Amino acid sequence: MSVFDKAIDLQPAGDGHFQGSTVPEWANMVGPFGGITAAALIRAIQLHPQCHGQPIALTVNYVAPIADGDFDVDTKLVRTNRSNQHWIVEQSQGGEVKTTATAVFGLRRDTWSDAEATPPTAPEPDGLEQAASPLTWFANYDIRYVDGAVPAAEGPGSDSSTTTLWVRNNPARPLDFAALTAVGDIFFPRVFLRRGQFLPAGTVTLTIYYHANAAQIDSAGDDFVLGTARAHQFTRGYFDQTAHLWSRDGVPLATSHQYVYFKG
Amino acid sequence: MSVFDKAIDLQPAGDGHFQGSTVPEWANMVGPFGGITAAALIRAIQLHPQCHGQPIALTVNYVAPIADGDFDVDTKLVRTNRSNQHWIVEQSQGGEVKTTATAVFGLRRDTWSDAEATPPTAPEPDGLEQAASPLTWFANYDIRYVDGAVPAAEGPGSDSSTTTLWVRNNPARPLDFAALTAVGDIFFPRVFLRRGQFLPAGTVTLTIYYHANAAQIDSAGDDFVLGTARAHQFTRGYFDQTAHLWSRDGVPLATSHQYVYFKG
Repeated sequence: MSVFDKAIDLQPAGDGHFQGSTVPEWANMVGPFGGITAAALIRAIQLHPQCHGQPIALTVNYVAPIADGDFDVDTKLVRTNRSNQHWIVEQSQGGEVKTTATAVFGLRRDTWSDAEATPPTAPEPDGLEQAASPLTWFANYDIRYVDGAVPAAEGPGSDSSTTTLWVRNNPARPLDFAALTAVGDIFFPRVFLRRGQFLPAGTVTLTIYYHANAAQIDSAGDDFVLGTARAHQFTRGYFDQTAHLWSRDGVPLATSHQYVYFKG
Repeated sequence: MSVFDKAIDLQPAGDGHFQGSTVPEWANMVGPFGGITAAALIRAIQLHPQCHGQPIALTVNYVAPIADGDFDVDTKLVRTNRSNQHWIVEQSQGGEVKTTATAVFGLRRDTWSDAEATPPTAPEPDGLEQAASPLTWFANYDIRYVDGAVPAAEGPGSDSSTTTLWVRNNPARPLDFAALTAVGDIFFPRVFLRRGQFLPAGTVTLTIYYHANAAQIDSAGDDFVLGTARAHQFTRGYFDQTAHLWSRDGVPLATSHQYVYFKG
């Protein structure tokens, strides 16, 4: 089982409850990488016997640091409508809530469609260098920066918070909703880029809108995903960060938004 | 009491429960305007005796239509950290959940700040025409379109989903977090603009990031707020919509994101 699949491997414990364990390979500065936590929560809903349809939207709130070890996930089906379904999820350790989430699942129908956001121009990933990082979880991805790489040393900072990159699971693993969810949190805090240095920072809330359906995600296979992220406002200890993700052949996969705490 | 204040007038019923009633003046196509529901939920948290700090982020999920009449709001304090606080909120009628929400409240500290998103160029609101709409709730706002007004008749549709507008409560009322929350949902569904017609559409989930603190919101007074909104992807029955809001003198107030169901 891949290190990704280990991290989202949940055991049903009845009545919407699931049990999982943190995996050391996903360690971030404090607790696991936020994307893998989000992936485990969307997987919990998918494992629920009453789950109906595909992920439409997910909001994850990072309430408190997750300690190494076992965790519980409690999924509550709020309501099933004709075409969608609402969920509330809590992740806890020893009865203490560490993460909350709400999710909308649903059926997708063909309708008029159009992409107003188009993928940024980017060279093919094959010729780009694989990025390195001292963070443990980073080794679980093959990330190739096109623009706006994480600052290597303290510098003057950039005028733009935009990063564009290619990313795929390392080792390669076919994309699914859980893996896409994790990639929704792949971009380092935008404040690092603007300030030209690492600062204490942590996502407090992450929202993902899933544009692709299961067939499109299957088609993305284990190939690179293209993403671009930027901030809009940095103010009084918080900033926002929005990312758009496309499959290698340009299919819109998801948009993610997050609000991030920072010091400095 | 203004029609806005009536709609967010909640009576504490102990243990984080509150009781309110829909107000006919806020009627939308089905149930009340989503923004006023969001405003009532943020107000409920503010009324909780353990509420600490100011709104940082809010996600509201529109689970089922709210019927005319009384509703209950159940606020649950998940955890208070040193600088922030996490909440789960449910709005129900007759025991049936109609809306869910999560919120982050917190203390804001002065830090490095910068606005990467800048307000769009717009003529002053005073010379612009006040927009009209057959929707009941619309009369509670003075909305002046700068660009991308709601289509008046079926047309060829626009290449752009962008709308820029000035908005204030009607009658004028000083801005506060509740009123700002409602304005976060002020933009009509972007698909109307792109398709040049009204279509069945409804927000399933709305997220607001509050950039301004209470002092900045107070300074905005009862003057117009400038907003601009656009979509990124329309696909298989859903589209996203992002809006940025500034005070009349250019202070960033909030960013809102929503995912919207549509037919057609």
